[in-house]
Amino acid sequence: METTTQPTATPDSASYEPTDRTVPTRSRDRAAYDRELVHAILDEAYVCHLGFVRDGAPIVLPTLYGRVGERLYVHGSTGSRPLRMAGAAPADEADPGLPVCLTVTHVDGLVLARSAFHHSVNYRSVVVHGIARQVTDPEEKRTALDALVDHVVPGRSADSRPANAKELAATAVLYLDLDEVSAKMRTGAPNDDPEDMDLPYWSGVVPLRKGYDPVIPSEDLAPGIEVPAYLTEV
Amino acid sequence: METTTQPTATPDSASYEPTDRTVPTRSRDRAAYDRELVHAILDEAYVCHLGFVRDGAPIVLPTLYGRVGERLYVHGSTGSRPLRMAGAAPADEADPGLPVCLTVTHVDGLVLARSAFHHSVNYRSVVVHGIARQVTDPEEKRTALDALVDHVVPGRSADSRPANAKELAATAVLYLDLDEVSAKMRTGAPNDDPEDMDLPYWSGVVPLRKGYDPVIPSEDLAPGIEVPAYLTEV
Repeated sequence: METTTQPTATPDSASYEPTDRTVPTRSRDRAAYDRELVHAILDEAYVCHLGFVRDGAPIVLPTLYGRVGERLYVHGSTGSRPLRMAGAAPADEADPGLPVCLTVTHVDGLVLARSAFHHSVNYRSVVVHGIARQVTDPEEKRTALDALVDHVVPGRSADSRPANAKELAATAVLYLDLDEVSAKMRTGAPNDDPEDMDLPYWSGVVPLRKGYDPVIPSEDLAPGIEVPAYLTEV
Repeated sequence: METTTQPTATPDSASYEPTDRTVPTRSRDRAAYDRELVHAILDEAYVCHLGFVRDGAPIVLPTLYGRVGERLYVHGSTGSRPLRMAGAAPADEADPGLPVCLTVTHVDGLVLARSAFHHSVNYRSVVVHGIARQVTDPEEKRTALDALVDHVVPGRSADSRPANAKELAATAVLYLDLDEVSAKMRTGAPNDDPEDMDLPYWSGVVPLRKGYDPVIPSEDLAPGIEVPAYLTEV
């Protein structure tokens, strides 16, 4: 149980410790706890799906996020639901926090087997369980907001106007430590049953396209501003 | 409250009725309840994020799904957690079902504003609240499994071996009716503040690539099987 709002130091272990919640009931061979793998999956996605409980029922909302070491950040208006639920008053030491589940998924390919039953997708996902709390330290809040922007495009926070006092005041940031974490993935070809191999159906993987399409500059850009290299060298 | 496992008829209204849970606390102008829009967003995605509550804490898992009219289906091993929680015994009329939140999100583009504060993504999402229950009717179960395969690639269920009795017995299917539903989206250019327009930062939208990369046929395909047209005409 952490009692500070400072990011935790990088732990010595190369893996997260499995718990009852992070060991799947099935396809255990697809689960992984390696920190580098988890970080890579988290860093590549644009949005996470944040789950919390309200009046006993689950709510799952897509939201932007950022990562600094072993800590994730999500942000929102100070008036938004999960932000308010995670503790209204800054520096409220009695704040119990908001139990959340933060999930990130990449769909890499469609897996077409000869049998309907073995159809699947190739994917990489990370599920994080924990307690989200408000960031109260102004310095950490700035770091978190930079991380959120750099998560969308690495290097971008240094190439935009930083948040001013009014914007900082209007934004609440939650942190969630990477502690109870698992990754899960499927890669490779379909797993058809031996007796289906000669069936007259095409089988294989359909990779999904990744990356950027050509950028659309704002119409009112100041003269002489070129597309930055971090958008074209991908 | 529905008491049958048969899909509901298509309602007359062109929109879902907003509820306390489906009216956002902020950015209300981005919320929509149009059925056609909701269906289009649902039909284009590959996985949903399914949220449920276990021991008071939220769990959010990525999973495949299918849609038939105003009913969604998710499936899994009969031993998997949410499937077991949604009612173990088929035809259990006392089954209270599993409160779930099913969310689907497309990230269409990265929105780079001059100010860090106005960075965002263009997205389309659908959030469905409701009670998931097991499909017990064998006919509906087959329809649901076809819908799950056709959701990955439209038309594919007719071009693969249908599930056999053993596979059907090993698979549990949950249904969730589209009743308490909202869509939310952001499109278009960044919304920079007027006083930021002359700042020397590039601003615009970076569309994310969509579609398929070249397919990877299984190595052991029977001779003479060509890539089906439904994979190349996209």
